[in-house]
Amino acid sequence: MNSFGNIFRITTFGESHGVGIGGVIDGCPAGLCIDMKKIQSELDRRKPGQSKITTQRKESDSVEFLSGIFDGKTTGTPIGFLVKNNDQHSSDYDNLKNVFRPSHADYTYFQKYGVRDHRGGGRSSARETIARVVGGAIARQLLESIPVSIHAFVNSVGEIEIGKPYQELDLSKIEENIVRCPDPGTAERMIERIEEAGRNHDTVGGTIACVIKGVPAGWGAPVFNKLHADIGFAMLGINAVKGFEYGSGFEGTRLYGSQHNDAFINENGVVKTVTNHSGGIQGGISNGQDIYFKVAFKPIATLLREQRTIDVELNEATINLKGRHDPCVLPRAVPIVESMAALVLADHYLMSRLSRL
Amino acid sequence: MNSFGNIFRITTFGESHGVGIGGVIDGCPAGLCIDMKKIQSELDRRKPGQSKITTQRKESDSVEFLSGIFDGKTTGTPIGFLVKNNDQHSSDYDNLKNVFRPSHADYTYFQKYGVRDHRGGGRSSARETIARVVGGAIARQLLESIPVSIHAFVNSVGEIEIGKPYQELDLSKIEENIVRCPDPGTAERMIERIEEAGRNHDTVGGTIACVIKGVPAGWGAPVFNKLHADIGFAMLGINAVKGFEYGSGFEGTRLYGSQHNDAFINENGVVKTVTNHSGGIQGGISNGQDIYFKVAFKPIATLLREQRTIDVELNEATINLKGRHDPCVLPRAVPIVESMAALVLADHYLMSRLSRL
Amino acid sequence: MNSFGNIFRITTFGESHGVGIGGVIDGCPAGLCIDMKKIQSELDRRKPGQSKITTQRKESDSVEFLSGIFDGKTTGTPIGFLVKNNDQHSSDYDNLKNVFRPSHADYTYFQKYGVRDHRGGGRSSARETIARVVGGAIARQLLESIPVSIHAFVNSVGEIEIGKPYQELDLSKIEENIVRCPDPGTAERMIERIEEAGRNHDTVGGTIACVIKGVPAGWGAPVFNKLHADIGFAMLGINAVKGFEYGSGFEGTRLYGSQHNDAFINENGVVKTVTNHSGGIQGGISNGQDIYFKVAFKPIATLLREQRTIDVELNEATINLKGRHDPCVLPRAVPIVESMAALVLADHYLMSRLSRL
Amino acid sequence: MNSFGNIFRITTFGESHGVGIGGVIDGCPAGLCIDMKKIQSELDRRKPGQSKITTQRKESDSVEFLSGIFDGKTTGTPIGFLVKNNDQHSSDYDNLKNVFRPSHADYTYFQKYGVRDHRGGGRSSARETIARVVGGAIARQLLESIPVSIHAFVNSVGEIEIGKPYQELDLSKIEENIVRCPDPGTAERMIERIEEAGRNHDTVGGTIACVIKGVPAGWGAPVFNKLHADIGFAMLGINAVKGFEYGSGFEGTRLYGSQHNDAFINENGVVKTVTNHSGGIQGGISNGQDIYFKVAFKPIATLLREQRTIDVELNEATINLKGRHDPCVLPRAVPIVESMAALVLADHYLMSRLSRL
Repeated sequence: MNSFGNIFRITTFGESHGVGIGGVIDGCPAGLCIDMKKIQSELDRRKPGQSKITTQRKESDSVEFLSGIFDGKTTGTPIGFLVKNNDQHSSDYDNLKNVFRPSHADYTYFQKYGVRDHRGGGRSSARETIARVVGGAIARQLLESIPVSIHAFVNSVGEIEIGKPYQELDLSKIEENIVRCPDPGTAERMIERIEEAGRNHDTVGGTIACVIKGVPAGWGAPVFNKLHADIGFAMLGINAVKGFEYGSGFEGTRLYGSQHNDAFINENGVVKTVTNHSGGIQGGISNGQDIYFKVAFKPIATLLREQRTIDVELNEATINLKGRHDPCVLPRAVPIVESMAALVLADHYLMSRLSRL
Repeated sequence: MNSFGNIFRITTFGESHGVGIGGVIDGCPAGLCIDMKKIQSELDRRKPGQSKITTQRKESDSVEFLSGIFDGKTTGTPIGFLVKNNDQHSSDYDNLKNVFRPSHADYTYFQKYGVRDHRGGGRSSARETIARVVGGAIARQLLESIPVSIHAFVNSVGEIEIGKPYQELDLSKIEENIVRCPDPGTAERMIERIEEAGRNHDTVGGTIACVIKGVPAGWGAPVFNKLHADIGFAMLGINAVKGFEYGSGFEGTRLYGSQHNDAFINENGVVKTVTNHSGGIQGGISNGQDIYFKVAFKPIATLLREQRTIDVELNEATINLKGRHDPCVLPRAVPIVESMAALVLADHYLMSRLSRL
Repeated sequence: MNSFGNIFRITTFGESHGVGIGGVIDGCPAGLCIDMKKIQSELDRRKPGQSKITTQRKESDSVEFLSGIFDGKTTGTPIGFLVKNNDQHSSDYDNLKNVFRPSHADYTYFQKYGVRDHRGGGRSSARETIARVVGGAIARQLLESIPVSIHAFVNSVGEIEIGKPYQELDLSKIEENIVRCPDPGTAERMIERIEEAGRNHDTVGGTIACVIKGVPAGWGAPVFNKLHADIGFAMLGINAVKGFEYGSGFEGTRLYGSQHNDAFINENGVVKTVTNHSGGIQGGISNGQDIYFKVAFKPIATLLREQRTIDVELNEATINLKGRHDPCVLPRAVPIVESMAALVLADHYLMSRLSRL
Repeated sequence: MNSFGNIFRITTFGESHGVGIGGVIDGCPAGLCIDMKKIQSELDRRKPGQSKITTQRKESDSVEFLSGIFDGKTTGTPIGFLVKNNDQHSSDYDNLKNVFRPSHADYTYFQKYGVRDHRGGGRSSARETIARVVGGAIARQLLESIPVSIHAFVNSVGEIEIGKPYQELDLSKIEENIVRCPDPGTAERMIERIEEAGRNHDTVGGTIACVIKGVPAGWGAPVFNKLHADIGFAMLGINAVKGFEYGSGFEGTRLYGSQHNDAFINENGVVKTVTNHSGGIQGGISNGQDIYFKVAFKPIATLLREQRTIDVELNEATINLKGRHDPCVLPRAVPIVESMAALVLADHYLMSRLSRL
C-alpha cells in the first residue's frame, strides 16, 4: 500500500520524526541521464522556510541516492534514495501524546493500527511527499525525452481566484512570485490573504491548476486506469486534497452536449479540437491536446489556537498547538502536484510502448 | 489494466457488440451467501429501457455465473460471470467506420491500438459497466455483514440542483422516481430538463452524490491508497465522469481552517465529530462518520444531430448519429456509482483485517 | 491469486463440474493475427480420450472467445474465453462427499475455505489447466513473431528414462507417438509401463523436459523475477508437479566450477557458449543459447483401488474410487508445460521492451 | 520487478559497490515486537569472513532501520532499512571492465540494459540478499507468533551427501559446525571438500534442505500461487540456484501412486498422514504436516584461475579473477534460504486470514 505506479513504480517509506524519508523507484529504463541539480531544485521548491508565507522550519532536504545510478546514468536497477530528517523538534509534540488533533489523522491511525507515533503525525505527515518529489523529478527527466512539460500553479486561495482560462496566462511567470500564481495581481492578493490568515493563527485552502503539454495521442487505458483516473488517484493521494476535476470538470455538467462536444479539425495535417472541454483526454486516452486539471486543497488542520477535541480515553479536552506551521499549503504543494502528474505520465508512457505488436 | 482492487479484485472483459460482457471476481471470502435476486435487481437499475428518460434499447442483461458459487454460497474460488449481448444493431454503426465521433474514444483508441472496433465504441462503451455492477452487487453483500449501506442519488441535472445537505433528504425515497433524486420537487424538474434535451436531440450532464453509512473507523491507508483516493479513482474510471470531491470538496477550499476543522466529541461513549467537513475520512482513513462524495458527469457525447468532425484520413467531415441513446446518463449511473464504491469498500474491509497483529 | 503474469497476464476461473473453465488474457498487444486452429490444436493435445493411455472420458473442450478479437486480430482489449464442461458425471463423486481422498486437495481445501465442492476436486481439478492452454496458445502466437519455439516432451516415466542429452534427440518426432517422447524405443517402453500401471489400477509419475529456442539475449530480470524463477514458478503451479530444475540442475551440484562454467566464444560474429550448463540463463537473464529445463510429476493420486483415509468427522474410513482417470498424467501435461512456458516468455518479451530508454 | 510478496511485501535496492543494500518491507501488521539482536544474528550467519571456509572479506553488515518501528514495535507503516557497504575493493574489478566473466551475469546484463556496472556484478551480486535476510528476519518474528519454525541446512557438497531422511537428524545441531550440516561426520567431509576446492582455486556446489514445522493446515492457494510454487519461486530467485523440489521431489517420480499416496490417519484427534511424500502440501495448500524441500546450488562461477571468454567487442580473451571469494556458497546461503521461506510463509499467513467470511 506504499507503492505507486505499475511499470514506473515508486515505493516510499519514512515518518516526519524518524531517521528520514526515502523511497525506491523501480522500472526506470536504463540509460537515462540524471541531472541531480534539477532534482534538488524540485526539493527546494517544496521545502519549508522558502519564503515569508511558508513555515519557518528550516529543513535542508537534500537527497542522497543509494543505488541505481552509475556514471550519471540510470542502470535499470532500482533507484534507492534517502532524505534525512534534521530539524526535528519532537518535544513540540509531547503535549499531543494523549489527544487527537481535530481533522488530523491521529484518531483514525490509532483506530487502524492500535499503536501511534504521535510525533508530528508520523507517516501521515506531508513530509512523506518529499519522496514523491524525488520520484517525480526523475519521471520528469524521462518525460523530457518526449518532450512533455508539466506546469502547475496556484489558481485560488480562499475565494481569491485567477478567474481566467489557463490559455490567457503566461505560465513562464509561475516561479516569479512566492505564491506560484502566474497572474501577478492575483498573486499579490493571495499573499495578503495568506499573511492575514497567519496573523489570525488560522489557515486557508485553495486550488491548484495544472497544464500538461506535449503528451501525444494514445496514452492511457480504456477502463479502470483511464489516464484521468490515474491522475485523479495520484492527486487525491496528496495530503489535504478534497477534490479533482479535469477538462470542463464540475462546471461542464451544466452544459448541453451540443455545447460541450469538442469538434475535431485538421490544422495543416495535425489533428486538433476546436474547444478542449475534454481536457486532452477522451475515453481515458490522451488525444494530443493540452491536458489540464484542478485540485482542491482544504485549509490545513494545524491551527495555532485553542480547539475542542477528545483525548485517548475519549474525555473531552482542549488542544492548543504550538510550533512552526504553514498557514497555507498551496505554494509548496505546486511541485508535489507536478511530481505526482509526472509519475503517472511516466508510467503511461512506458505502457504505451506495449499497446501494439 | 482491466483489473480493479487489491484483495477483492475484479477483472472485466467484453465489448458492446461482441458476445457479451463478463468478468472474474477474485478474493471474495468463502462462505458468503449470495442473493441472486439482489444482483439482478442492481442490473435492472442499470439497464436501458427502464423508463421514458432512458434509451429505449431493450437489453435483458441477465447474468449467468460460471464458477465460484456452489449451493448458494461463495467457495473462495474465482467467480466468473457473463452477461450476453442480445440487442445489437451493429449496422447502426456502419456509417461510423471511417469517422471519429467528437468527444468519443474513437480517435484516441485508434491512436493507441492502431486497430479499431467501430461498432458502438467497442470496449469504451458504457456497456462494460455491467460487469462492475455484478461485481459491486457481490461486494455489497459482503459489506452487509458489517453492515455498511451505500446510497447514491442524482444531485443535479444541468443547473437544476437539490441544494440541500444530504442530512435533510430522505434517502429511502431515491427509487421512488425515475430520475433517482430523493427530493420529489427537484426530481420533477430534472425529468423535464432531460425530456427537453431529448426533444432537442441534445444531452445533459449533472452530478451524483453518494452517502455511505456504517463504515467503522480504521479503513483506508495512509499514503497513496487513501480511502478517498481509491474511491475517487473508482469514480473517475466510470464513463463520462469529469470530477470527484468528498466531504467539503471544492467549496471547502473557501473556508478558513477554524471553520473547517471537525471537533471531536464523545456522545455517550461514541466518538463523533460536531461537523463532518472531513466526509468521514481523515488522513485517508475512515473515522466512523458518514462518508459522502460527489461525482461530475459530462453531457454524453452521442448527439442525434449533425456535427463537424474528421474522418480516418483526417479529412473534414460531418457526422449524423442515429440509434437509440440516453439524453442523460445519470439515472442509470446511480447503481454504477454504488457498485464502484462497494468494490473499493469491500477491498478496504478485507485489508483492514490485516492492519494489526 | 488466480492471475498469472505481470504485463501479459491471464486470470482463470472455473471448476471441473461447474459450467466451464475460462479466463481473461490482459495485456496482449493489439494487431496480433490469431490462428484459431492452432489454439484448438493445443487443446486437443491436452484433452482426455485422445489415446489408449489416457482417461477415456470424452470432452470436446472447444473454446469460445467472448471478446478482444475482431476481424481475426487482437484489439488490445482483454480476451475473454470459455470452454464449457460437457461430460460431467457428478454422481461419480457422491460417495466422496464425506471423505478426504489421500494426497488430494480435499482435506486442505476444506481447512482453507471451510466449504467444499466435492465434485471432482472443484477448483483443484487439472481441468483448470484448459484455461492456461488457451492463454499459452495465444502467447505462443505472439512469440512466433520473434520467432521463439517451445518443445516439451516426456523424458521419463517411472524409472524409464531417455538418458540422452536433448541435443541428440529429433524434437520433430515428439508428436509421432502417443506418449510424446521423441525417442521411439523409449516411447514404446513408456507406453508399456503406463498400460501396466493402468491394468494394476495404479498410476505412474515421470519427468517432462522442455527446450526453448530463439529467445534473444536480454530477457529476464536480476533479482526476484529471474527468468528461470518465473519459469519454475509457472511449472510448480501445474497440478502434480514436485520439482523443477534448469540447465545442469541437481546433477550440476556435483561438478566443480571449473567443469561447470560455460566459456564464451565468438562464432562468426555470434556470441555462443562452448557448453550450456547455464541452460540459456545467466544471472536470471537469457544469454541467447537454448533454454532447457525439467519438471517432475508425481504419480497421480486418484487410484481405482481401496485406500485408507479419514472422513470429514475424522473417523478412519476406506475409499474406493471409481470413474475414468489417467494412469499417467505426463502425455497430456506436455502442452500444459509448453503453455505455461509461453505465458512466462510472452510476459518477459514485453517487459524487455521497457528495459532501455 | 524488485518486489517480492503480495501482502507482506519486500522491495529491495542496492548494488555490491554502491552506497549499500537496503529495502522496504510493506504490509507487516502493526504491534509486532521486534528483536533487533535476532535480525543482526541472521545477518551474521550470512556475512562473509565468518569462518575458514568462506571468503575472508570483512563486512560488518549492520542494519540501520529508517522507519516503521517505534518504541520497539512495528507501527504498520513501511519499514525502510539500509546496510551500508564498507569493504569495497572496486579496483579489484577494474580489469573486468571490458570482459564478460563466464557463467556470470555480465554479458546478459549488458544485453538487457545496454549499460553495465562492472564492479562486482552490480545488482547481480549476492550481496543483494542482505536485504532479503533482513526482511526474512522480520517475517520470522511474525511467524513465531503461530509458532512456525524454519530449519535449513547443508544437505550435500559436491557428491558428499547426508543420505538420511531429515527425521533422523538432530536439527538443533545445524549451527554447531561451520558448514551448517546437522550430521557431524558428513559435516567434516564437506569442510574438507570445500577446503580442497579452495586450494585448487576451484569451487563446489551442493544442496540445501529445509524443514518447516508448525504451519497449520490451510495456508496456500489452489492454482498459480500454490504454497510450494511460491516457495519454489522464492528459492529460484536466490543467486546460483538451479533446482527446487519438495516432498518426494524428483525421486518420487519413480514411485507408483500406490506407494506415493499419503494415507490420512486420526492420531488422538489430530489429523496426520502415515507417510509425507506430499512434503506437507496438498493441492497447493498446507496440510499441517512438516513442509520440506531441497534447493540445488551450482558451484559458483568466480574462479581464481585463468578462463577463456570474450570481451565487450566480442574478441576472444582470457580472464584471471583476483580477490576474496567463497569456494562454496552453501554455508552462507542457509540463512538466505530460511529468509526467503519466511517471507513466503508470512505472506501466506496473512492471506490465510482472508479466505473465509
